[in-house]
Amino acid sequence: MCATCGCDDHSHEQGGGVVIDLEERLLARNDHLAGHIRDWLASIGVRSYNLMSSPGSGKTTLLERTVRELGLPCSVIEGDQETTFDADRIQATGVAAVQVNTGAGCHLDAVMVRKALASLDPAPGSVVFVENVGNLVCPALFDLGETGRVVILSVTEGEDKPLKYPHLVRTGDVVLLNKVDLLPYLDFSQDRFLRALRQVNPHAPLLPVSARTGEGLADWYAWLSR
Amino acid sequence: MCATCGCDDHSHEQGGGVVIDLEERLLARNDHLAGHIRDWLASIGVRSYNLMSSPGSGKTTLLERTVRELGLPCSVIEGDQETTFDADRIQATGVAAVQVNTGAGCHLDAVMVRKALASLDPAPGSVVFVENVGNLVCPALFDLGETGRVVILSVTEGEDKPLKYPHLVRTGDVVLLNKVDLLPYLDFSQDRFLRALRQVNPHAPLLPVSARTGEGLADWYAWLSR
Repeated sequence: MCATCGCDDHSHEQGGGVVIDLEERLLARNDHLAGHIRDWLASIGVRSYNLMSSPGSGKTTLLERTVRELGLPCSVIEGDQETTFDADRIQATGVAAVQVNTGAGCHLDAVMVRKALASLDPAPGSVVFVENVGNLVCPALFDLGETGRVVILSVTEGEDKPLKYPHLVRTGDVVLLNKVDLLPYLDFSQDRFLRALRQVNPHAPLLPVSARTGEGLADWYAWLSR
Repeated sequence: MCATCGCDDHSHEQGGGVVIDLEERLLARNDHLAGHIRDWLASIGVRSYNLMSSPGSGKTTLLERTVRELGLPCSVIEGDQETTFDADRIQATGVAAVQVNTGAGCHLDAVMVRKALASLDPAPGSVVFVENVGNLVCPALFDLGETGRVVILSVTEGEDKPLKYPHLVRTGDVVLLNKVDLLPYLDFSQDRFLRALRQVNPHAPLLPVSARTGEGLADWYAWLSR
């Protein structure tokens, strides 16, 4: 009899090993395909950026401005569980966008990105932005063949998020701190945030921005164009 | 040869069936244990609430006030990938709290809650709050044996989140719209939010609140005490 819940079903004490084996196989398969994507994008001179954040951190608003203001040809892959809202917003700027709906899924993977890239057919020398599903956990594990990873946190989420979600935050090649226009109305210390960030990601540039007002975006465009 | 990426590895086209079978077994096992938890809590007259939201939506701030102001004996299970920040904050109010760290994991499950409950040993007639990992996707699938599910969205996340994360939002028995003190500084329409919410969750009460200022919390306490 199960010692804790008192039932005769021992199965909920077991199964961890099978799950871990399967996860490793899935991730290895994803990494393999991501390698192909990376090689192919490099061969045609396309850079791609994987944007990862919580839901509502301002990824799409950032991209609406970026594709208009960056001064380079762009296209966008939008990931969401449901709706085409984000692809519609990008297309309204005149830039090509493909929406990927993950259904119950919690992240984009390399298979989804490969299919979206086949549809987008990005021009040589252009930039592809991949807006991941809003989630500070699961996207961390899935290589999408990107040139760089962009972690976006917003000031409304609090200073402790780098320490609470270290697995994703430490993978960022750049970290944007968004919604700084709201700082006057919040109890948020940029110093405490920076200390928390540096504990998990010592080197990524930190760029305070407001996708709504445009504050700080010149630094973001400079980072993308470096 | 793989038609899309040009390699000889067909495996990244396969494996979906195995994953789905394993997921179904894992969820069935979780549901079984959650049923035991639910029966046990009911037998001692304890109600439990599973709080689910994005990272930084204000779950812990809400609980800090709730455990002080509700007027019922409470205890708290805190879920986070890393850190004991949230359990520390609850314990500072004088209320018992257990921190569960999920590591790379993206949600709490019934096994974790069972262990935490064994440690908390909640008093008959008390209320247990379970603060899930900040994630609008994965916690949806995992029954924790709770009496009720509380979905928290904040006005800084935008009006479209119910439609973008419907799988979790539709499971809410009550929906809190937090951070309404920031409404004067945002482009956020409560009407549009309500229309989006009702498309995926027609019946759950919607309670606009500010965990920071206390606005609207009387309605939340009334809902908990109903």
